[in-house]
Amino acid sequence: MKKKVELNYDQRGLIPAVIQDARTKQVLMLGWMNGQALELTRNSGQVHFWSRSRSELWRKGSTSGNSFTLVEMTVDCDGDALLLQVDPAGPACHTGHDTCFFRKIGNNEIDGVKLL
Amino acid sequence: MKKKVELNYDQRGLIPAVIQDARTKQVLMLGWMNGQALELTRNSGQVHFWSRSRSELWRKGSTSGNSFTLVEMTVDCDGDALLLQVDPAGPACHTGHDTCFFRKIGNNEIDGVKLL
Repeated sequence: MKKKVELNYDQRGLIPAVIQDARTKQVLMLGWMNGQALELTRNSGQVHFWSRSRSELWRKGSTSGNSFTLVEMTVDCDGDALLLQVDPAGPACHTGHDTCFFRKIGNNEIDGVKLL
Repeated sequence: MKKKVELNYDQRGLIPAVIQDARTKQVLMLGWMNGQALELTRNSGQVHFWSRSRSELWRKGSTSGNSFTLVEMTVDCDGDALLLQVDPAGPACHTGHDTCFFRKIGNNEIDGVKLL
């Protein structure tokens, strides 16, 4: 019998979800899920998140149309992070970029870093 | 003049860092960094994290030898997540798997999920 996977939510009841394009393997964004977002995602096949700023559930693409269709979900060794392979309907980022990770960090380009 | 990137650390002073194999594009793990871990990573070229369980800085591979050499770093649109492209010296996971995300989640395989 297959062992069940235990998820370790944080103190807020959230778990981070790395979103990767199943085809190109580009990492698109990092979102946060609670149990409801996870259940909705698994039941509908459309990725849902918990918005920490708005304190509400949202389906990715509900306003932009740029939804994520779930292809595969994995959990890490200690059960406190998810990796979702998705099929994106359009650019993942609200800025219009394919990925939210479009800003490369070079030397001397980060503010707010605590010095040693 | 290039605009500086502002990082938004969480209330604990941490930011999540998605680690991706620069060559294979496999997502290897999700780690947490504070300002010191980030500075050490940028200065040494070897990825450092903040361990939330041990409350200490650690260099990936310091005991296992399976270090990550930094290839490129990007930050997401709202500055609260990092993506590090790395060259891994060996299997990323302490279990010996190439990636910490080696457990696929199917139907009815997650415990601890809050039902709707």
